[in-house]
Amino acid sequence: MKPLRVIIVGATGLVGNTLIKVLEERDFPLTDLRLLATAQSAGKKLRFKGEFIEVLPVSLKLLKGDLIFFSGGDNASYEYGWKAVKQGALVVDNSSTFRLSPEVPLVVPEVNSASLSNHKGLIANPNCTTIQLVIALAPIHFNLGLSRVIVTTFQSVSGSGREAVEELKQQSIAFLNNYELPPHFYPHPIAFNLLPQIGDFDKEGYSQEELKVINETRKILSVANLPITATCVRVPVFQGHSEEVIVETQKDFSLEDVKTLLSNVSGVKLLDNPWKCVYPLPRKVVGTNDVYIGRIRKDNSASRSLHLWVVADNLRVGAATNAIKIAEELIKRGDL
Amino acid sequence: MKPLRVIIVGATGLVGNTLIKVLEERDFPLTDLRLLATAQSAGKKLRFKGEFIEVLPVSLKLLKGDLIFFSGGDNASYEYGWKAVKQGALVVDNSSTFRLSPEVPLVVPEVNSASLSNHKGLIANPNCTTIQLVIALAPIHFNLGLSRVIVTTFQSVSGSGREAVEELKQQSIAFLNNYELPPHFYPHPIAFNLLPQIGDFDKEGYSQEELKVINETRKILSVANLPITATCVRVPVFQGHSEEVIVETQKDFSLEDVKTLLSNVSGVKLLDNPWKCVYPLPRKVVGTNDVYIGRIRKDNSASRSLHLWVVADNLRVGAATNAIKIAEELIKRGDL
Repeated sequence: MKPLRVIIVGATGLVGNTLIKVLEERDFPLTDLRLLATAQSAGKKLRFKGEFIEVLPVSLKLLKGDLIFFSGGDNASYEYGWKAVKQGALVVDNSSTFRLSPEVPLVVPEVNSASLSNHKGLIANPNCTTIQLVIALAPIHFNLGLSRVIVTTFQSVSGSGREAVEELKQQSIAFLNNYELPPHFYPHPIAFNLLPQIGDFDKEGYSQEELKVINETRKILSVANLPITATCVRVPVFQGHSEEVIVETQKDFSLEDVKTLLSNVSGVKLLDNPWKCVYPLPRKVVGTNDVYIGRIRKDNSASRSLHLWVVADNLRVGAATNAIKIAEELIKRGDL
Repeated sequence: MKPLRVIIVGATGLVGNTLIKVLEERDFPLTDLRLLATAQSAGKKLRFKGEFIEVLPVSLKLLKGDLIFFSGGDNASYEYGWKAVKQGALVVDNSSTFRLSPEVPLVVPEVNSASLSNHKGLIANPNCTTIQLVIALAPIHFNLGLSRVIVTTFQSVSGSGREAVEELKQQSIAFLNNYELPPHFYPHPIAFNLLPQIGDFDKEGYSQEELKVINETRKILSVANLPITATCVRVPVFQGHSEEVIVETQKDFSLEDVKTLLSNVSGVKLLDNPWKCVYPLPRKVVGTNDVYIGRIRKDNSASRSLHLWVVADNLRVGAATNAIKIAEELIKRGDL
């Protein structure tokens, strides 16, 4: 295995930081790690394996390497993504820019690594909410056939980045001291509140986040017309996304069947003993790389329908860890 | 209209306090207000219309009046509810004790005030989560016919009482100061977290709160086999319950039809312009007596299906205000 020159674009963001941490934890086979960010964030030094690496301002000239993780938002990916590929790198892109492009594989390695065989140098990492959802859905889909999916999300503020984390923190402190900090990042206060809006709304009243979940799930599972609906809500939690999922299947099942299917999947852990207060909690999953599933029960309002409560670390499972697993899969295939 | 001797059992609790406030706001026609609580809470003085009333320890002897609101929990209602009726009072009971008894009407005045005609002296006030749900469902049910209901709740800690409010507050302060207060009231930390458990679980894995929503909704709407499922989640919000509701109907509808139906109902206010960031928020509804509905949109994963985001003050709409509306209805009918 040849040692790789790896570059992270957006290294100073929450996902960029997590990429550095997970590369180190997994002892990813790299010979050189270059950290890039906007001019504004350049100059910072970030630690990797005990050494400090200075963050440089992103430029096409510096985007020469073997593998580049883009986590600098839509603009950076749009401007530099394909140019970096032309300069010889493989790109794993965390932004939403190319996810629905037919020539770009949208990959969750546990689910559809086969789609990597047709890549053209740029692979898209799905939305955080989508990744944990499809990891839970895939074994049910492949064995029982999905006929409908309904997902309601409880999403933490770290999904919106560093500013949002600070906003929840400062607004909470203010509220607990009986004063009010006006919203700055979000359109309404997030402290001790709920925002049923993640991204702008389309004509039909669906938010961008809801459309991402719907469209990306269909693409990853290769079911263009999968009946699926979503409601995405921002909650005052710092890290860890939670999802209440109703899954309707084509074939009959017993709950034991489903539990066996789910527990046999790499990347999934069942935490399902509600009678002993055991179920996944967002604060408990922070720092882990698995999808936790609990509260598995029949939905008696329809036949062949069940409930799942699906929780994962949105910065890891939903972003950094999945991106690195894509890269590891590319290595396994000899593409890197 | 004869002036009434009114008694509140559980006057020092969150719902008891709110009852006192709402009786005052609505200028309820009472000539005497007696406040009762456990021996532990007795002796406190609570203000009503500028005067302080001393809270007395509950006893059968003191439960003589025209109208008694029970908000002292299941035990108090179980022990004293029917005995108070025998002593000549009409009882409006906030506990869950008698809600499903066939001889007890379970009433949301906007929805099923007709069921009051058969009361035997004790009327049950539904669960907070149920009240705001059925107020939203009823106009759709009566005009389009419900074929299935799916509800996911985001419930504030005030629904669990004063101790829970204090727990969220103290744990939040601790967390923001980088230390941890172990859970006391709830089985897990609630600060910056989510608990997919409200009450104990039955054999099938449904929580008591989920079963309440299912069974009470069926009883209030008089559809014994209504296909309905629920997932109830406690969120780190102090006051105001939010619900994501999917409603499937028997008849076709346009979204405009539904908006017209809902906006014609007393007790409902539409806040539905997501493109301008207008939708109901739990912190915004605190202190109000209406059910707020927004994010009304089609659910494209099924035919004749729609989404509603339903938010209300759980201590008022979900408890005190509904109880007082029941009493007002009893006055209107000449029962009081």
